[in-house]
Parts: sequence; C-alpha cells; structure tokens
Amino acid sequence: MTMLGKIGEHAAIKKLTATLGSHPALRVGAGDDCAVTKLPDGEIDQVFTTDPIVENVHFLPSDQPERIGNKAVGRVLSDIAAMGAQPQWLLVNVVASPEQDVEALERIYAGINALCHRFEAVLIGGDLAQGPCLELHVFGTGTLPSGTALLRSGAQVDDCIFTTGPLGGSRAGKHLDFIPRVEEGLFLRTSGRVHAMMDISDGLATDLRHILRASNVGALLDADAIPKNGTLENALYDGEDFELLFTVAEENAAALQLQWNEQFATPLSRDGRISDRENELCIQFPDGTAQRLEEKAFEHFR
Amino acid sequence: MTMLGKIGEHAAIKKLTATLGSHPALRVGAGDDCAVTKLPDGEIDQVFTTDPIVENVHFLPSDQPERIGNKAVGRVLSDIAAMGAQPQWLLVNVVASPEQDVEALERIYAGINALCHRFEAVLIGGDLAQGPCLELHVFGTGTLPSGTALLRSGAQVDDCIFTTGPLGGSRAGKHLDFIPRVEEGLFLRTSGRVHAMMDISDGLATDLRHILRASNVGALLDADAIPKNGTLENALYDGEDFELLFTVAEENAAALQLQWNEQFATPLSRDGRISDRENELCIQFPDGTAQRLEEKAFEHFR
Repeated sequence: MTMLGKIGEHAAIKKLTATLGSHPALRVGAGDDCAVTKLPDGEIDQVFTTDPIVENVHFLPSDQPERIGNKAVGRVLSDIAAMGAQPQWLLVNVVASPEQDVEALERIYAGINALCHRFEAVLIGGDLAQGPCLELHVFGTGTLPSGTALLRSGAQVDDCIFTTGPLGGSRAGKHLDFIPRVEEGLFLRTSGRVHAMMDISDGLATDLRHILRASNVGALLDADAIPKNGTLENALYDGEDFELLFTVAEENAAALQLQWNEQFATPLSRDGRISDRENELCIQFPDGTAQRLEEKAFEHFR
Repeated sequence: MTMLGKIGEHAAIKKLTATLGSHPALRVGAGDDCAVTKLPDGEIDQVFTTDPIVENVHFLPSDQPERIGNKAVGRVLSDIAAMGAQPQWLLVNVVASPEQDVEALERIYAGINALCHRFEAVLIGGDLAQGPCLELHVFGTGTLPSGTALLRSGAQVDDCIFTTGPLGGSRAGKHLDFIPRVEEGLFLRTSGRVHAMMDISDGLATDLRHILRASNVGALLDADAIPKNGTLENALYDGEDFELLFTVAEENAAALQLQWNEQFATPLSRDGRISDRENELCIQFPDGTAQRLEEKAFEHFR
C-alpha cells in the first residue's frame, strides 16, 4: 500500500489524471488553471475549474464566515482569470456537520454572492452533504473567444516575466480577502501580448516551474525586482497569493506596462526573463551573483 | 444559533438558495435535477449539476473502490439523465487524508472512467485536497436541444405516473452499482411525450412530492402497481434508487410503453395518476381503500 502522504499531492494528481479521456471538443485537459472546451458555435470557448477549501487546512473555524465564502469563490475566479476568461456559472457543494451553525452558512453565502456579483458570475446550483468538518467545493465556468485562452505552455525564450501585486505573507490574512484579478486577466488576454499566464497559488518559485515545464524553457528571476510582502523567501514560497504570473515579448513589455498603469491600481512588476535552459530556475542578486532554485514548496499531504 | 441538524437539509438548502442570482441566459436555477442555461448559438441548452459522496455517509471504507467511483459519477449522470440530456464534461474533487491508499484512489478512478466511457462523458479536470475522510465531489454538464429539458414543473392533471426499475432496498448493494438511466432519459426526451421528469434519489414518495409542488398538482399512487424490491415501505421511502420518475398524458401512455418495451430491458411501471388536489399524495390499495401519505423521508443532518 502506498499512502498519499508518502508520494504527495502532485505525484498523486499525475497518477490519477494519466487516465483522463480525450474528445475533439476538448482543447486543454487537466494540467492548466482550467480545462478549455469548444462550444458548438465555434466562436466561443468555455473554461472549467474546481477548487475545494477545507476547515483547518484552508481556513479556521474562527475565521469570519463572509471571508471564508470570499476565499472559496475567489480561488475559482482566480483560475478563470488566469485563462483570460470572463466568469459565468458557479455551483457550490457544502459539507458540514449536524452541529454547523446555519447563520454562519448564510454569512458564507453572503461572501460568495458579493464576489459573484462583483464579477458577473452567477451561482446556479450546488448541494449540501453531511461530513465531519466544514468544506466548500466551488465549480466554475467562464467564456472567451475561441482559441484565445492564455495557457502555461506559451512562454518563449527572452520573454519578460511579470507578476501582479506583492507576493508572500498571504496566510497572515490576505488569503481570505483577496480579490481575484478577473479584470486584469481580461485586459491581458485582449491585449494580445501575453504568451503564457497562470495564477500564483503555491508561490512564485513553484508556480513559475509549471510554466517552464509546460513551455520547455527556463527562467532567471531578479531578486531585487520581485514585489515582496516580507522576505524574498516569503515571496518565492509562501503561496496563496492569487496574483497573476505571465510572460510578454521584450519588445511589447514597456507598452503593456504603460497601458496597465493607466487602467489598474494593482501593481505590476517585471520580475525576470525566460531563458533557453529547460526547467532551470535561477535567481540573480543585486551583487551580481546568481543561484539555482531547487524545488521546495508547500505541498498538501506531505 | 440554529444548528443544521435541527432544521434539516431541505430547509437549509431553501435558505441558502433564496439568495441565488438570475441571468437572461439562465433558464432554470436551483430546484430541479440540474440547472439549465442557454448556449450562445441559441440552439443548444447546457445543464449543470454537482453531487458529493462522503465516507460513512454515502459509502463505507470497506466498499470496493471501483464501486465508490461508479456511485460518485452515477449520481451526477442520473441527474443529467433526469433532464433528458446527453452527458458531456465532468470534474472531480477528491478529499482524502494523508493515510489514504493511492492504489485505492486509482481504482476509484477506474470506476469513474468506466462509467464515463459507457455514456460518452469525459473527465476533464478536478482537484485533490487534504481532509479528515474520503470524499468525492463530481461536477457534470450535459447538452440538449434548446428548451427541451424535462422539468419537475410540467406534470398535468390526469397524467399517468411512470417509474423505471424496481424501487427500494438499494442500500443493500445496488446503490453502489447502479447504472444511470442515461439512454432511457434521452429516449423519453426525444419521444416528445413526457410532461415532467426527475430521478428518484430520496424515495418515490419524497421525490414525487417535488413534482407535485413544482407542478401544483396532486397524485394517487396504486400500491399494487409500484415495482417493489422488498415491501411497499421500502419502495416508497428507502431512496438511492436512481431510477426515473415521469408523467405522460393518458392518451400517449400505451404507445410510449410499447416503444419502451421494444428498446429497453429496464422495466417500466405505471404507478398511478396525477390529480388536481394540490400537493396531496394518496395511495390506493387493492381492497379499494386509499390513504394520504404524510411526509417522511431520510433527510441528511436530522
């Protein structure tokens, strides 16, 4: 018997998704922020994602219910934003014990509905089941013009690497209150200038590796340029930032940054550059020295 | 503080869904087997549903993993079948402890994939989270021609009430192995003869009430005609049958039954008739006496 805790989340997901099906209308299956499918009219693609949050893993029983609702939906909207899509439909499964306070559930739903309303997402269903602790499972869909989804696999050598917002320290509070970068994601997709995009949920260093692997490239980060909330370590590894990470060709980077600054208060940082050294993630320090970053991340079950 | 266990599942769902949003492309929101939305081409509608199964509530740790996977997906496909839709995309969230056996998870996925394959549904994503016990949350979509979804609200006075399969005793084993009535649901929708339909998950007596309420009608069941696996009590209240319950105008009932018998081995029974006595559910016995059935059902949390 092999225990989940021994092989870890990523290896287990790899084993389980190895058996997934294919279909002519499925553009992108498991492995990106969302799956992408073609709608019958041929003009619009639909994206699908799902994210669970579990008491004592993703939130505490003492957290304010509205903030728990915000986080549950925010994670899904962040995945949809990372494709450059407009959120559309949401369904929510609630697992709770018979001792669960119903008013707290209503307040969680108030948090869910507030965030849905802000981004024109509509809650259309769900279910309620009995279980040992409180959990929310949110399923979401979104839409975008056919073939325009921003994938992890599009990064090109010499692209500039950008991130939104400061990174790190999210678990001190922001992880419950964050606003998913839906408008920013739509802007980036319609700019036509972004090669690869994803959201940062496990920390910049860990998530950037997904882009490197999917695009067969490497990266050199600039330690000074990374927007930090806390230390460099916090910015690279804390996770739960729910900011956007994307790459843009060098010749378009300045123009995009200018347009961004006109439209958004969200800070945008140029953190480094894509290299041709496959899967190699390096970081350069102000003194000119550089260092390879080894894999190290918060992983569930380990 | 009001505890969930005090007000029960249905009252809690009613409270929580009271706040759900609306949208011009949303035909049917919470309250039917699936939500129904219009796709942009105007010719096809999409249906959405989600169902959780939780260890020690919906299955036991000792149950065969393939059968657990079959049940998780089967419940969702049964909801899609109950609209008369063709299943399309599925996503699965798994919650498990670090001690979870990975091979058992792979066998659960084998059960999921086998049922998907049978009905041309495609698993396109999901997530894995840490929690105190094993759970599967399946989210599914399906498609059908615009405006043709079979709802709970279409029953008409004097309609005949039909059910598939024998009812009752499912928890002795069938609840893990059942085959959702996808082909039967598609046949019933394309027949153009069905007024209202749903699947039976909480027992005939409880679920028929949903149709009565949604359609503002009553019903008179024939105790002798109900296809029983066990006693009448079992057939009315056990639940987890995952059979189809639907109504058809008297003048079309015989022709539909003939067509059915040519195509399906699944037994079809004519169990009673829709009456004009709003929300009144009665049952008639062979000796000519009749009795009102009061509400009584397995309800989570109570």
